Amino acid sequence: MRDRLALGCQLTGMVLIMNLYKNFVALNVDTLAGRLKDLAVLQDQVGADHKAWRVREVGDGNLNLVFIVQGPNGAAVVKQALPYVRLVGDSWPLPLKRSFFEYHALTRQSKRDFGMTPKIFSFDEKQAMIVMEFLTPHIILRKALIDGREIPELPNKLGCFLARTLFRGSDLCMDTKLRKADLALFSDNVALCDITESLVFSDPYYNSKLNRHTSPQLDEIVAQLRADRDLKVAAQRLKHIFANMPETLIHGDLHTGSIMVTDHDVRVIDPEFAFYGPMAFDVGMLLANFWMSYFSQRGHDGATPRNSMRSYLLKTIVEIWDHFRNEFSKLWHIERTGILYQRQLFEDQNDALGSAQALDQFLHGIWVDMLGFAGVEIHRRILGLAHNADFELIADPDVRAACETKALKLGRHLAVNRAQIQSMADINALAERLEKEIVS
Amino acid sequence: MRDRLALGCQLTGMVLIMNLYKNFVALNVDTLAGRLKDLAVLQDQVGADHKAWRVREVGDGNLNLVFIVQGPNGAAVVKQALPYVRLVGDSWPLPLKRSFFEYHALTRQSKRDFGMTPKIFSFDEKQAMIVMEFLTPHIILRKALIDGREIPELPNKLGCFLARTLFRGSDLCMDTKLRKADLALFSDNVALCDITESLVFSDPYYNSKLNRHTSPQLDEIVAQLRADRDLKVAAQRLKHIFANMPETLIHGDLHTGSIMVTDHDVRVIDPEFAFYGPMAFDVGMLLANFWMSYFSQRGHDGATPRNSMRSYLLKTIVEIWDHFRNEFSKLWHIERTGILYQRQLFEDQNDALGSAQALDQFLHGIWVDMLGFAGVEIHRRILGLAHNADFELIADPDVRAACETKALKLGRHLAVNRAQIQSMADINALAERLEKEIVS
Repeated sequence: MRDRLALGCQLTGMVLIMNLYKNFVALNVDTLAGRLKDLAVLQDQVGADHKAWRVREVGDGNLNLVFIVQGPNGAAVVKQALPYVRLVGDSWPLPLKRSFFEYHALTRQSKRDFGMTPKIFSFDEKQAMIVMEFLTPHIILRKALIDGREIPELPNKLGCFLARTLFRGSDLCMDTKLRKADLALFSDNVALCDITESLVFSDPYYNSKLNRHTSPQLDEIVAQLRADRDLKVAAQRLKHIFANMPETLIHGDLHTGSIMVTDHDVRVIDPEFAFYGPMAFDVGMLLANFWMSYFSQRGHDGATPRNSMRSYLLKTIVEIWDHFRNEFSKLWHIERTGILYQRQLFEDQNDALGSAQALDQFLHGIWVDMLGFAGVEIHRRILGLAHNADFELIADPDVRAACETKALKLGRHLAVNRAQIQSMADINALAERLEKEIVS
Repeated sequence: MRDRLALGCQLTGMVLIMNLYKNFVALNVDTLAGRLKDLAVLQDQVGADHKAWRVREVGDGNLNLVFIVQGPNGAAVVKQALPYVRLVGDSWPLPLKRSFFEYHALTRQSKRDFGMTPKIFSFDEKQAMIVMEFLTPHIILRKALIDGREIPELPNKLGCFLARTLFRGSDLCMDTKLRKADLALFSDNVALCDITESLVFSDPYYNSKLNRHTSPQLDEIVAQLRADRDLKVAAQRLKHIFANMPETLIHGDLHTGSIMVTDHDVRVIDPEFAFYGPMAFDVGMLLANFWMSYFSQRGHDGATPRNSMRSYLLKTIVEIWDHFRNEFSKLWHIERTGILYQRQLFEDQNDALGSAQALDQFLHGIWVDMLGFAGVEIHRRILGLAHNADFELIADPDVRAACETKALKLGRHLAVNRAQIQSMADINALAERLEKEIVS
């Protein structure tokens, strides 16, 4: 059913994009200062004399170049997309336009939850390059959790970030005409959606060549999961929701590697996967990464077992969800100005209880789908292409596999039984029983 | 949360659109032949000498001009959008671009279910004008049903039309990159979506000034429905699905007034409301109009009660759903080439039963939402702005109100209890008990 017209539009679009990026040249530590020396915002941040700039490349992600530029005035980050997946190499091309989506997502997130994203100094579309705030002494949250650090600010900041960005980008709040135009803008972020659609929802559940897992220790459970009919159907149902439910502008890759922290600050970075998708996706992916951290702690236990860290992680999951619910409920009552669940039908008819009933049902829908997204996120990080340092840094494969097995079992429970799960307390009780090997 | 950038884009878009349509002039019966005399496709259809053309204006819908042009060679239809809602007048502006969406929907529907739409001869974007096949001796299906005519071809043709257009425009079948580009294209059909969002899902459930109903006969039940908390929440949940679930290119206005029939042919017309929405919407709206026809028959009973017609209508509902299910299932097995429920996970793993399980769940999801959409469609045709001739042509307001009351009750049942309704047989049994006043 190829559509010639659509194909024509697409080819025209590709030519326009190729022209847009025809002068793209990747930066490197030697060329950066010379090429960006006239950029006023960078002079302001770092210092007027570019010869005094020190440039380091620190990109440890899978996709991009990230430079820290330091000088007498201070420092800034220069992030540049590459026309391929850095993790894999130039055999896997990836559009530079993801930088455009990252920039536009950052500006929207900053308005919706001010202070939770890095400040943006400039964006150069043709060079797919964003100049932004250098966050210091922040470190990646995932690293902090692997190190056993407890970050007190997480639940409030992350719960509110989820509620504010998800609510304020939806038809509950925005002018639907603007939302539909924005949806059209982001619907071109096809390549990054394709990564999620394939790597999260499908590849882990069959013998795709990009997959890897701790072998031979996990071979048996992997075979079980790939033969698990209910799990496969659930994963595909979740893919259906991911691809066909553009409720709001989601971050799209909100794991603990996309968050930077100090003891008193939390920032969310790297929204290049942003597109209009289901609210539950960001919530579920985030919580999944805390559950994985929980099960990985055994592999990082020192002389003293990390019991306190494990309790902290489960408590954090409960509290993020609670803060999310509370903030979302608050916004429901005071910022519900969109086309959905209009006040004319409820509050304005003296039916505040109707509004509360609708809110409960809405949050219940997010709850159910969020659990499913958490389940598949856990699976893909252990069975798929992109693994987590939480598990990867456990050197002993037997210990790693034991941790991963428990996570896989929780993931299966969440994905398949999500509509019947009552509370976060129940899930965490199951996680504890898996961890203590009371159930297996 | 107004976004200046999006607003800027929107204003630019508005200027472009105003320029596109700056030479728009509405046709009329006196100017049409002179203005279109050089259109080769019209000469081919009607005859080379435009002086021999006879032009009639026959638009009986709410929105557009429709001309039939006849001449020595034959006839053609010229449909032109107006920059306002014809039903209301120029106080309600409506974008001419709906003609663009209608044209593009017709071309896609024609590919997905060839022969079920009128042939398109030409499209003039600047004049918002489509020249198409003159269907004769076809009449509007709604009129046939009011006249008590049974059309044998309906279930097979309409069930297959639904299955083919809905399946083939979705991520079950299409290349998702093309689907996402097409979604972006149709996401600009904001004004017509807004009509549905307001007039179907919200206005009927509060005292909106555009509403009207048979009064005073229906005053009491209307007040009950507008105070019905579960119904209001259900209607808003359905609006959420309508606005935020772009599974496929839907017709968007598939009632019995958008279908033309003879005893042996069925055609679907007028897809100017087309956009990417939930599959269940087209199915539910269509079946709702058959249930309304069922309850309206009492108002058109002659000397002989229309028992046979009533049975035919209920049987047709059952059969349209069955044909839809069968055709959709067939396509699931032979054309499932999209990103959802990929064969690699099921058939290719010798798990045909997994594919069948997924299909059952997918169809169940359509079933549940379809019933809800049917419920609100029934309500809005009796409580809202745009009423149906089925009821409107019943001159005696007491008889009309009695018919409408039964339909309203069925609609409430469908919208609120949709997740617990087992079968079409159960619904039709309830419809019969309402009709015979065994329940009230």
